[in-house]
Amino acid sequence: MTEKLRAAVIGAGYWGPNLARNFRTSPDWDLVAVCDLDEARARKVVGARSTVEVVTSVTELLARDDVDAVAIATPARTHAPIALAALEAGKHVVVEKPVADGGVAARAMVARAAELDRVLMVDHTFCYTAPVLKMRELIAEGALGDILFVDSVRINLGLVQPDVDVFWDLAPHDLSILDFILPGGLVPTGVAAQGADPIGAGQSCVGYLTLPLPGGAIAHVHVNWLSPTKIRQMVIGGSRRTIVWDDLSPQQRLTVYDRGVELGQPLPDKTTTNISYRLGDAWAPALPEKEALGVMVSEFAAAIREGRAPRTDGHAGLRVLDVLEAASRSLVDGGRLTPVTGSAVAGSLA
Amino acid sequence: MTEKLRAAVIGAGYWGPNLARNFRTSPDWDLVAVCDLDEARARKVVGARSTVEVVTSVTELLARDDVDAVAIATPARTHAPIALAALEAGKHVVVEKPVADGGVAARAMVARAAELDRVLMVDHTFCYTAPVLKMRELIAEGALGDILFVDSVRINLGLVQPDVDVFWDLAPHDLSILDFILPGGLVPTGVAAQGADPIGAGQSCVGYLTLPLPGGAIAHVHVNWLSPTKIRQMVIGGSRRTIVWDDLSPQQRLTVYDRGVELGQPLPDKTTTNISYRLGDAWAPALPEKEALGVMVSEFAAAIREGRAPRTDGHAGLRVLDVLEAASRSLVDGGRLTPVTGSAVAGSLA
Amino acid sequence: MTEKLRAAVIGAGYWGPNLARNFRTSPDWDLVAVCDLDEARARKVVGARSTVEVVTSVTELLARDDVDAVAIATPARTHAPIALAALEAGKHVVVEKPVADGGVAARAMVARAAELDRVLMVDHTFCYTAPVLKMRELIAEGALGDILFVDSVRINLGLVQPDVDVFWDLAPHDLSILDFILPGGLVPTGVAAQGADPIGAGQSCVGYLTLPLPGGAIAHVHVNWLSPTKIRQMVIGGSRRTIVWDDLSPQQRLTVYDRGVELGQPLPDKTTTNISYRLGDAWAPALPEKEALGVMVSEFAAAIREGRAPRTDGHAGLRVLDVLEAASRSLVDGGRLTPVTGSAVAGSLA
Amino acid sequence: MTEKLRAAVIGAGYWGPNLARNFRTSPDWDLVAVCDLDEARARKVVGARSTVEVVTSVTELLARDDVDAVAIATPARTHAPIALAALEAGKHVVVEKPVADGGVAARAMVARAAELDRVLMVDHTFCYTAPVLKMRELIAEGALGDILFVDSVRINLGLVQPDVDVFWDLAPHDLSILDFILPGGLVPTGVAAQGADPIGAGQSCVGYLTLPLPGGAIAHVHVNWLSPTKIRQMVIGGSRRTIVWDDLSPQQRLTVYDRGVELGQPLPDKTTTNISYRLGDAWAPALPEKEALGVMVSEFAAAIREGRAPRTDGHAGLRVLDVLEAASRSLVDGGRLTPVTGSAVAGSLA
Repeated sequence: MTEKLRAAVIGAGYWGPNLARNFRTSPDWDLVAVCDLDEARARKVVGARSTVEVVTSVTELLARDDVDAVAIATPARTHAPIALAALEAGKHVVVEKPVADGGVAARAMVARAAELDRVLMVDHTFCYTAPVLKMRELIAEGALGDILFVDSVRINLGLVQPDVDVFWDLAPHDLSILDFILPGGLVPTGVAAQGADPIGAGQSCVGYLTLPLPGGAIAHVHVNWLSPTKIRQMVIGGSRRTIVWDDLSPQQRLTVYDRGVELGQPLPDKTTTNISYRLGDAWAPALPEKEALGVMVSEFAAAIREGRAPRTDGHAGLRVLDVLEAASRSLVDGGRLTPVTGSAVAGSLA
Repeated sequence: MTEKLRAAVIGAGYWGPNLARNFRTSPDWDLVAVCDLDEARARKVVGARSTVEVVTSVTELLARDDVDAVAIATPARTHAPIALAALEAGKHVVVEKPVADGGVAARAMVARAAELDRVLMVDHTFCYTAPVLKMRELIAEGALGDILFVDSVRINLGLVQPDVDVFWDLAPHDLSILDFILPGGLVPTGVAAQGADPIGAGQSCVGYLTLPLPGGAIAHVHVNWLSPTKIRQMVIGGSRRTIVWDDLSPQQRLTVYDRGVELGQPLPDKTTTNISYRLGDAWAPALPEKEALGVMVSEFAAAIREGRAPRTDGHAGLRVLDVLEAASRSLVDGGRLTPVTGSAVAGSLA
Repeated sequence: MTEKLRAAVIGAGYWGPNLARNFRTSPDWDLVAVCDLDEARARKVVGARSTVEVVTSVTELLARDDVDAVAIATPARTHAPIALAALEAGKHVVVEKPVADGGVAARAMVARAAELDRVLMVDHTFCYTAPVLKMRELIAEGALGDILFVDSVRINLGLVQPDVDVFWDLAPHDLSILDFILPGGLVPTGVAAQGADPIGAGQSCVGYLTLPLPGGAIAHVHVNWLSPTKIRQMVIGGSRRTIVWDDLSPQQRLTVYDRGVELGQPLPDKTTTNISYRLGDAWAPALPEKEALGVMVSEFAAAIREGRAPRTDGHAGLRVLDVLEAASRSLVDGGRLTPVTGSAVAGSLA
Repeated sequence: MTEKLRAAVIGAGYWGPNLARNFRTSPDWDLVAVCDLDEARARKVVGARSTVEVVTSVTELLARDDVDAVAIATPARTHAPIALAALEAGKHVVVEKPVADGGVAARAMVARAAELDRVLMVDHTFCYTAPVLKMRELIAEGALGDILFVDSVRINLGLVQPDVDVFWDLAPHDLSILDFILPGGLVPTGVAAQGADPIGAGQSCVGYLTLPLPGGAIAHVHVNWLSPTKIRQMVIGGSRRTIVWDDLSPQQRLTVYDRGVELGQPLPDKTTTNISYRLGDAWAPALPEKEALGVMVSEFAAAIREGRAPRTDGHAGLRVLDVLEAASRSLVDGGRLTPVTGSAVAGSLA
């Protein structure tokens, strides 16, 4: 058996405890320490009768040589400084989404990781769930034919941070999934964003993103903080098959409709054209029940051991970030279709 | 018992047979005739061993004095000429959605009906379904508090007419429902439309409408021809309660979540604000099982007998039409938020 | 086109109107008359502007020579006398379930139909629904492997007749489906019945039937009048696949689980044996949307024209009846497993 | 804050790890040790970087004075000897279901716990789930009116032990829930059991229990190992309301139908009686999301601290056991309704 890699988790807030639990139970990892400015909070994550260490100083943590990698689960604006320090200290890094709070900072992280030959991974957790892995596989093998549209709905409750709107809070999930499953990644020809703030929160609480895709397809994302009723649904329409992913239907999360749509000939009366539908069976693939975060920490370990990019690497984080920044620009511009800039895309495809 | 009113159905295509069946079995109506240029098609609607008459000339039909009212289920571009002729002939008129193919024609219909003191109704069928009637009632009595957002999804298959895009084909359903349930009707501050035609049909097959509402709320409509998988779902988020209408869940079409969302005080650490959720029970009101079209023809009869406007009158049809026309303008203008013009709105509120 | 067969419906109560409607719209049939002692009730079924005749005398109806076949939808105790008279008059007969109120009467019907070379069919409507037809097909082609168990639940509301318990009212549906889908028909090795009457109705309102099947399998039926909540679900477990039929889930009535169970070897520690499960995908076959009663009247016409037994013939009715009679005997005998007697079974397999 | 109680878990097989995890994270407990003959298995439960001790001798464990209570998760036949030894050593005891492998052993446990004034609890985990707690509350406050029927379905996969049939493996769940929610506990007037073994496992793999209840109501349990498709559903029909608990529908586990059924007067024609249904709304109570096992270990601590019987005490375990033993007798007696013997019932009500 390979020796375990040694990890530390930085940040014991909302997501840190989940990371800690998964590093702890992973056969690939030994959780050495949990680091937080708030010692009591870190100690609670570690729990009773445990010899996992509690550390309150990032500097001190990074100076240790019994830590191979760190997982950063702190606020987005601190991602870049902590990640850069960790890379400099020779650690591999996995960072919460979004990869950083802006493209410049994120590009610095990606560049430095490459120079130092360290793994930089973004924790796009949903990409490691069984339904998303299956959708990626089905699309890659051509089961859907041409992708015609993708529609994603994420109605979710959550704590609102005053400097983060609903797009930056929730849409990274949808965008990272799109980036993961679309052949070629998420490279829309533009972004149009519409938002609303009916409760006076000071930022959009309901948001819609429209993302025209190369080839005429369209992706659309609905994110929403204002409904205590949860909906998490994605429809991916293809020329040969359509997938519906309903994440709140545990008995059948994924349904593949073996049905296609195609343009027929104009009808004889010349007044109606014909879209022809092939109405076949539906099919629900068996999905393994594994915790996504456990799959993610395994992928992190595998990337480190094999000296390769992880499935959701820094470039994936950049593509998502570039779309979010374009969405913010569209929003202040009345919802106009806005180009996605940044060299991230080119870089990742090069 | 009141004497029955006498009806004729004009148009024996897709929707005409449904109208005919409902006039036939309604206690309020006597179906006298079915009219279509294609006699065989009309005869098929009438069926065997029936004395309902088959007529092939609209002129001839309108000249009869044993017909009190006509239901027009012909292509949209013929609505205005047939309806105007019927009104001139003294008939009451119910017309399929959309009320006409343009605002000018529709305004002429509304004006002439008023002058001639005839009922002009639009068959916004969904408004007469039990879930929509219940939603209207709940909203009217304040059960939802302030409306914060409305999100409507209608993924449907259907024959495509070459001069009608997915907005004009499907969105009248969503818009007429919004007009029916929102207090004050559908008077958005603008319309933004995004569409896609990934199969080369020559017009939008997937479409999204964003409708900012007075007071900061937002309505959004997703219409889609390209998925053979049906979804018909509307979420109405309010400050006190949220409604989810899933029309394909016959055992529980309507769920009212007794849950609200409100803006709390910034948290002590000043870095996070707080949206507070009240997590109460869900509730599924018992709904009567009546065919909506049967309720519609009864309302048509009641409006005629009581000399009043029907629930979905010509003005309602106009408000829907004005939004559709603004959507078409937004679409050619790259999805820009576009004002809704037309005097219909003012007229209806006057 | 073949000339239409001419039908009359006898009985305009609960089910008669449905039969009348389907004969009326069938391309195979011409509905000539509706017969009921209560003329107004029959006239209501016929409706306005119709030349379908209303008849109040069965004798008079059967004497007509413009009627080829009759559908009998009267109380069970009148089935035999009316059917026998109709057969003597040369009519083909389809009769509501149960075929008669006792085995002796039913056997007389079957025998006389054979002697007179007339079709005798039982309206086991559910057998003509798309899910049941599909289940029969899947079982017949071996898709399920060996049938291990069948579990049927039918929780339904309905008018209670004082001389009919819940077994005789509802179980004919489940038993006729079992008879239709099981290879070889419904020939249990016995019947055990448990019932309860917690509201003092004077007869069982909740009932359970256990039916051991040849080869060690078991079928079980739960019928229940006391729940206003509807459940209609059948699970058919096979050695290779399992079917779940949820009739109230219109989007996916039938799910076929490509999963099997088999007995493995005892585990090394000798304390546990191993049932091995193959966990494959689920699959929802596309089902045509046809009204079952329309399929039934077509089968009736086809059987008459082809001079063959219909799919649900008198023998099928007898097998169901024999199980019901055995269940009644078990019920008075404290739920003891009771043999199914009657020569029906042997006769039908001869 | 109260000092924590000190626990040890005996048995590191299937259920032990769940118990260990919940004692570990409970604010009421300090998990001191995990005990198993197989040291590696116990060590795996304890995990890395932990100071929870691993013990391989029960005797040694029970001799320690830093353990207040033990949780026994070993095979049923070892429950009594281990529990009795633990009680003698002054420990409080919680034991997996079934409480023991026979009534004599179980009665000895109950008696000795009483004499030694120790808490004896049975881990009827389902009784601590939110839906079951809510059902108990609703029934206790009379929301359902008179209970008319209870129908429980548990189709589940699982490892088969050669000396345990499907009744002893799965039915304890249903029976313990019935015991928990029915006013007065589970005291049926008899038990009838039907089983089948279509795969030749040597014991029943599909089983049905019928339990007539005092007052004319009926309970029924369907347990089944042979379907890889999971169903866990309980319907509780009352004279005023009906509850449906669908445990695999996480968004709405519990639905309360505000509908009742009652016996009406015979109809005027004397041939039909009338069951009258009140068709009201449905209602899905908000349920807290807590792990049941966490609630159970808290109840164990509370019972110890307050010197009272826990909610699922030894008597509850005995009532379940007595029904299981009567079911076994009924099974060998051809499914005859069999009386429940044992003094447990009387004892528990005294």
